[in-house]
Amino acid sequence: MTHDAELYPADRLDRARAAAVAAGYDALLVSPGPDLRYLTGYEALPLERLTCLVLPAEGEAFLVVPRLEKPAAEASPVGGLGIEIAGWAETEDPYALVAGRLARGVGRVAVDDHMWAEKVFGFRAALPGAEQGLAGPLLHGLRMRKSPAEVAALRRAGAAIDRVHTRMADWLRAGRTEREVGRDIAEALLAEGHARVDFVIVASGPNGASPHHEVSDRVIGAGDPVVVDIGGTMPDGYCSDSTRTYAVGAPPADFLEYYAVLLAAQTAQTEAVRPGLTAEALDAVGRDLITAAGYGDRFIHRTGHGIGLETHEEPYIVAGSTRPLEPGMAFSVEPGVYLPGRHGARIEDIVVCTPDGGERLNVTGRELVVL
Amino acid sequence: MTHDAELYPADRLDRARAAAVAAGYDALLVSPGPDLRYLTGYEALPLERLTCLVLPAEGEAFLVVPRLEKPAAEASPVGGLGIEIAGWAETEDPYALVAGRLARGVGRVAVDDHMWAEKVFGFRAALPGAEQGLAGPLLHGLRMRKSPAEVAALRRAGAAIDRVHTRMADWLRAGRTEREVGRDIAEALLAEGHARVDFVIVASGPNGASPHHEVSDRVIGAGDPVVVDIGGTMPDGYCSDSTRTYAVGAPPADFLEYYAVLLAAQTAQTEAVRPGLTAEALDAVGRDLITAAGYGDRFIHRTGHGIGLETHEEPYIVAGSTRPLEPGMAFSVEPGVYLPGRHGARIEDIVVCTPDGGERLNVTGRELVVL
Repeated sequence: MTHDAELYPADRLDRARAAAVAAGYDALLVSPGPDLRYLTGYEALPLERLTCLVLPAEGEAFLVVPRLEKPAAEASPVGGLGIEIAGWAETEDPYALVAGRLARGVGRVAVDDHMWAEKVFGFRAALPGAEQGLAGPLLHGLRMRKSPAEVAALRRAGAAIDRVHTRMADWLRAGRTEREVGRDIAEALLAEGHARVDFVIVASGPNGASPHHEVSDRVIGAGDPVVVDIGGTMPDGYCSDSTRTYAVGAPPADFLEYYAVLLAAQTAQTEAVRPGLTAEALDAVGRDLITAAGYGDRFIHRTGHGIGLETHEEPYIVAGSTRPLEPGMAFSVEPGVYLPGRHGARIEDIVVCTPDGGERLNVTGRELVVL
Repeated sequence: MTHDAELYPADRLDRARAAAVAAGYDALLVSPGPDLRYLTGYEALPLERLTCLVLPAEGEAFLVVPRLEKPAAEASPVGGLGIEIAGWAETEDPYALVAGRLARGVGRVAVDDHMWAEKVFGFRAALPGAEQGLAGPLLHGLRMRKSPAEVAALRRAGAAIDRVHTRMADWLRAGRTEREVGRDIAEALLAEGHARVDFVIVASGPNGASPHHEVSDRVIGAGDPVVVDIGGTMPDGYCSDSTRTYAVGAPPADFLEYYAVLLAAQTAQTEAVRPGLTAEALDAVGRDLITAAGYGDRFIHRTGHGIGLETHEEPYIVAGSTRPLEPGMAFSVEPGVYLPGRHGARIEDIVVCTPDGGERLNVTGRELVVL
């Protein structure tokens, strides 16, 4: 809960309200999660008790919180925004509280994309006449264009995860299980400055062919390629995410062949980033090279995802997205090649689009590291 | 992703389906989270791409997953359940895929309580005729009655968090900030066997009066009472949660006075647990003692929450709940006393209701530890 007025400026509430009004909504309802943190700086755990920022098209914004959370909310950056923090008692109905305050005819409300179904339905019951829509389309436009302070936060997160990757030789060796290595990595994420470990993928040998494998009790063997995809959240809320593929001893020849293709593709993609290039065009820069080398059907996912207060957010770098890149957009560039039953490889950097091109926030070497 | 057939038995899908049919639902839709893990053993990250277990009232259950997650799903316990795992490609519409397979007239669907609004609305659009309700009421009945294997898992989690509390003297001392102490505790949670750190509250001096304070840059001072409320998730999915209040040097006399009251109340509550006692009666056992001592208005939250695959789940130990305790129910007993601007205290154990009474899963000393 870092109170950083630069990172969480107070004008976001007004900008979100304006976007909601423009889209014809009478109120915006935001429960704990990245949207709430973006708008207010308040990091609240998503729990069963309702915490919700209410941003009416007309009238003052207010935050509804369980009474026991009120001191924590007041101590958070919300306390400095000058909005009312309304506590509700353990035996009150917080949905009715919100509905009562919204008063006159609420025709359409937007809820944050991650609001839990139980809360969506709680508001549906308390505001039976209101049509419910998603706040995401209103808020993505704000969130995906990072301010210089946000880019600086992502740069710090990138440096923290890079420090973990540079220590990989301490942990990754033949004879250890993926789970053992993963535990060491998780502790290092915290030691290097993250407040939270978000994911630790240590995918050795054939497990490397499963892009979202996490860890298992598989013992890493000599010559195994190992995909290490790791990320966490910094105390200021911003996320890291970087993948490197290692080899524990000399890897198989077929692996080396496609690793070279992958490295060329990922390098070409990070160098291609520039304002105006569409997301699908950036995806194609890597996919075309990988396809030309005969591995097109082995690159089974999109090129990347935006990153900020969430590890996955807009803009997605995917076929079919004609969204043009703009300065301030931050996203992963992470092509991969996966040979089921054998092994796989992925290289991932976070890249920020700048007026002149792209800035890589992960700068550890991309050449294969043989440990 | 421990495949433990005892912890995640295969009959849960049938039991959930029967509960859905009895409640008049045509299908149950379960996205990543504790319900999915409970029903299938599959630990999937909640991400923007749709992963969803579909349990139709008639016909075979199936799991829809992004194609890149398919190998991870197959390697998880889901692979052993004999249900179809249907992968969808990056450019397909997974909601339409589910709707198409549900075929004949779906009048009512139940979605898991934590399903994100964007997914709830995705299904609303793909199944425009279907009334949506919550799966929670169907699944709580199963989840809150723990099997012996689940109680054993909670016992292991309890032992892990107890080991962290017993090391508190290594970290908690005057002159350090809450954040520094919190980081050490987080690393210890992992070192003592948790797969994930869920929360670390280090609330010193006046911060102790805010029940959900986390950590801050406040420097812990001599004589400060410090509330330490910590928990994590074990590799098998089960959670720990235990609070102890420490004093860094001799604490103020007014603190000692209410700590004695709190200790008596929490002890009385853990000893009162038995089948048939209602949740509200258990709440009252502690609240009455605290109120009689003059601190009733300083105990500003319920007594506790259930715990299992989530830190907070049914049964809640709260005024107004006439739910009778049953053997197998596991929940926290955590009364607290909070003096705004001064300090606070909370003592928390996880207790399992047994046929004969209650078993405490946290067994570190509850007397005030002066460090």
